[in-house]
Amino acid sequence: MREGKVQLIPLGGLGEIGKNSLAVRYGDDIIVIDCGLMFPEEEMLGIDVVIPDVSYLVENKNLVRAIVLTHGHEDHIGALPYVLPELNVPVYGTRLTLGLLEGKLEEHLSGYAADLRVVRPRESVEIGQFKVEFIRVSHSIPDAVAVALHTPIGVILHSGDFKVDHTPVDGETIDFHRLAQLGERGVLVLMSDSTNVERPGYTMSERVVGETFEETFRSSRNRIIIATFATNIHRIRQAILAARRYNRKVALAGRSMVNVVNIAQKLGYLDIPAGILVELEEAKRLPRHQVVILTTGSQGEPMSALTRMAMADHKLVEIIPGDTIIISAVPIPGNEKLVARVIDQLFKKGAEVLYEAVSGFHVSGHPSQEELKLMLNLTRPKFFIPIHGEYRMLIKHAELARELGIKPENIFVTENGQIVELNKKGGRFAGRVTAGRVLVDGLGVGDVGNIVLRDRRQLAKDGILIVVLTMDQESGQVVAGPEIISRGFVFVREAEQLLEEAKEQVKNTLEKCGGRGTTEWTGIKAEVREILSRFLYERTRRRPMILPIIMEV
Amino acid sequence: MREGKVQLIPLGGLGEIGKNSLAVRYGDDIIVIDCGLMFPEEEMLGIDVVIPDVSYLVENKNLVRAIVLTHGHEDHIGALPYVLPELNVPVYGTRLTLGLLEGKLEEHLSGYAADLRVVRPRESVEIGQFKVEFIRVSHSIPDAVAVALHTPIGVILHSGDFKVDHTPVDGETIDFHRLAQLGERGVLVLMSDSTNVERPGYTMSERVVGETFEETFRSSRNRIIIATFATNIHRIRQAILAARRYNRKVALAGRSMVNVVNIAQKLGYLDIPAGILVELEEAKRLPRHQVVILTTGSQGEPMSALTRMAMADHKLVEIIPGDTIIISAVPIPGNEKLVARVIDQLFKKGAEVLYEAVSGFHVSGHPSQEELKLMLNLTRPKFFIPIHGEYRMLIKHAELARELGIKPENIFVTENGQIVELNKKGGRFAGRVTAGRVLVDGLGVGDVGNIVLRDRRQLAKDGILIVVLTMDQESGQVVAGPEIISRGFVFVREAEQLLEEAKEQVKNTLEKCGGRGTTEWTGIKAEVREILSRFLYERTRRRPMILPIIMEV
Repeated sequence: MREGKVQLIPLGGLGEIGKNSLAVRYGDDIIVIDCGLMFPEEEMLGIDVVIPDVSYLVENKNLVRAIVLTHGHEDHIGALPYVLPELNVPVYGTRLTLGLLEGKLEEHLSGYAADLRVVRPRESVEIGQFKVEFIRVSHSIPDAVAVALHTPIGVILHSGDFKVDHTPVDGETIDFHRLAQLGERGVLVLMSDSTNVERPGYTMSERVVGETFEETFRSSRNRIIIATFATNIHRIRQAILAARRYNRKVALAGRSMVNVVNIAQKLGYLDIPAGILVELEEAKRLPRHQVVILTTGSQGEPMSALTRMAMADHKLVEIIPGDTIIISAVPIPGNEKLVARVIDQLFKKGAEVLYEAVSGFHVSGHPSQEELKLMLNLTRPKFFIPIHGEYRMLIKHAELARELGIKPENIFVTENGQIVELNKKGGRFAGRVTAGRVLVDGLGVGDVGNIVLRDRRQLAKDGILIVVLTMDQESGQVVAGPEIISRGFVFVREAEQLLEEAKEQVKNTLEKCGGRGTTEWTGIKAEVREILSRFLYERTRRRPMILPIIMEV
Repeated sequence: MREGKVQLIPLGGLGEIGKNSLAVRYGDDIIVIDCGLMFPEEEMLGIDVVIPDVSYLVENKNLVRAIVLTHGHEDHIGALPYVLPELNVPVYGTRLTLGLLEGKLEEHLSGYAADLRVVRPRESVEIGQFKVEFIRVSHSIPDAVAVALHTPIGVILHSGDFKVDHTPVDGETIDFHRLAQLGERGVLVLMSDSTNVERPGYTMSERVVGETFEETFRSSRNRIIIATFATNIHRIRQAILAARRYNRKVALAGRSMVNVVNIAQKLGYLDIPAGILVELEEAKRLPRHQVVILTTGSQGEPMSALTRMAMADHKLVEIIPGDTIIISAVPIPGNEKLVARVIDQLFKKGAEVLYEAVSGFHVSGHPSQEELKLMLNLTRPKFFIPIHGEYRMLIKHAELARELGIKPENIFVTENGQIVELNKKGGRFAGRVTAGRVLVDGLGVGDVGNIVLRDRRQLAKDGILIVVLTMDQESGQVVAGPEIISRGFVFVREAEQLLEEAKEQVKNTLEKCGGRGTTEWTGIKAEVREILSRFLYERTRRRPMILPIIMEV
């Protein structure tokens, strides 16, 4: 690629654009910002996680200089165990971000020696022709940064996930001053978080949740259980401080809660007063008004600690009437019903459940409209590319930028895989690269594609019906079977007659086809499939997968 | 059952209680209020709809006197095609409600002579020892009623789905006066709609949506497409009036939209000015600013007209840049992602999409807290049973009733199948009846149960692997196979080696088991299954269903 131009390419993602990974190219240098995973959509049956398709990076492996991380959330770092060995480049990030990544790499790639390089906010590193600068922002995890890529043609500013919290729990506000400085000197292009663009006003400070915790702790005579994301260290910290103030001990439930709290504590992001943390076993023996349990499961995940408590399936925590349960999160789109079910179960056990619809036990980690305007006006970019959001959100964010005076021709609403190419004067869409989703199922990365999924969908909907028979190779006569076996189609014990009739249909078909010889088995199979399909649909209005198998002896 | 007592029994339902059907028993008379269907939850693979389990009614068939309907929504009348033939009792409802039911019965039970009896608000009918009175309420469908059951021990008031709309589109307000009269004379028990109990304040009037339509129609120079529920005749009426005012023609898209508009028009619930309705074909030829299309698909349903438009798969409507699309509904929990995906597609086609998150193109049909208080204070019941909501909502509604002075011991938060038994003095839970869900899959009603669903879930997650072999009955030797066939497990073309190795595993197992004779086939099958299962899990971390089939010759 010719110098004097920069290319911005969002990679991967399901509905969201540029969220999970984004490539920036200048000349022969590519820098990757974030590399996160996604959770499968409903129709991706049996899929565990989804990672971005990084074919473009692999094809240009010799140009990729580094991966730069904005913060330690799964959707920004979670694909690295899959992608990093393919690229083998240094990874830059703040201390907590890399601390969380390290745990992940150990778990998935034991023995792999990753080149992790810790950076601090306001620090800059030279990577190829880029000078990469890290700028502190507020978010629902500590140590989050925006990234400024200084290039020969200007500054590319990537906001990361951010919010403007004027009273942050850790005292570290977003680095207004540096953003203002960059704005004053001239930002070529801003790429900014669009997650909450549909919300007017300001996102509330994380501190608000702390105040609500304190109020609840003060007035409650019962055990308190708080479900939240393990990575929301700010919130965990506030829960622990409120516990100390009201003389409660804190116990942790859920594997990732224990893990993340350990890492955060070890790295100095979470200062836990001595003696306040107890094991769940010990918490059981304490008077209930002296206990707070911090747990995973705020999304109603079926295997999470909170869900197991709700279903009376947790070894150490049994919900009893009077327990106060705080769901300190909102359901991620798609999880609404799971969360509602857990809340219902908790109420049925006599617990009091406090959740978002009722009052403020959660604030977002993303910026509302007024914060987005502030980011735009502080940085005054020439070009604007909304990212981190579904397409409709990017459209809204683009409108907002236009209202603030960014020229319409300098705003690019893009899609994953689409190249935005800019020079100092103007920009354009410059084609596409391969991008999208790679499905991970067990140990298989990318091997489950459309054909396997299509089969799973058919199996899921109406099950399978297998017809087996053995034929004599020479005579073409059926010597065993046909046998019919079904799974997930009908309740076999009550459908004996139907399956018997189906067998008759097969026999009739075979008789009609009889004597054709073995060369025509494909034809016979197709005919059996068609006749059975029609027969079963007529009788049941279902379309199971029909699988004829012919053995020869 | 002894006289002097009344039993109230919510039936069916998934998360919601008493929504889809509720039985009221006094002595030897049972009246059923509503009989609706539910949509399957995510894990109910392949299920079309879910209906209430009415075993209790069927077992007491000789006592069931009538089914009484509150309004014509699917979740209140939709199970009747399945249930009515089993009970064969008269069905009472208002004209529109029965008009909609009639269409449904014709479709599913052509030839069945249902005994449908039209009633009007303020009308009363004697049914067994009950006098059943119908009382007008506002809702998102015309002709909705509450039901007052006058019994020898007092009045049982069932709110149905309602809201308090002071400026209803059809001019018919909720019958405050009759409710007040009943309250003045004494209501024994109120059962009231809890759907929106989590919302403070008042639900806005349906008229608000009409005003937003007018504004949009006035300012738009483009084609307007409105997606809404076909049964929301109020809204359709307002769209048509706005169209007339701004000189647009109206075309209908989607089968249920056409059906319901026809029925409503025929029965006089929708007065469409002459010449305003055109066919979609004709609308195509009109200038775009002279067209409004009313369509189904507000829930992102994959086969609906709006979704087909968004996916460029609709025969007559092609979305073009500038089209204004109004999603006049909110996603029902569980449909959020479907709706978001349709909106994204529409934006990508260059349409402007107006949806709830952005501004007021929808109001709820259910009462918020202030309306619930009004209902409680107007009717001043001795006993209160919150219904129509998930358990957590009933709990909130119960709290609200306590705040208004209903005695805690007179409030019953119940579950489906639970009997609340009341006399003039007090009430208690009096056991349970069979209740719950019956799954409908194609023509099968209730035949798909846990076993079939468990199989479908396993098939959906990791597919199936079938091992077939033919054995000689006498020698116990394998004469054909083993063959391995898989579907939905791995992409076969890229997994040949894995499947080959799996075959070796089977052969080894057979050799080890060899010579045991045919009586031990069950054992051989189990062994093959276990060894393969372990092998495949180790290699893929997947657990396909493994189905060994042995044929004998």
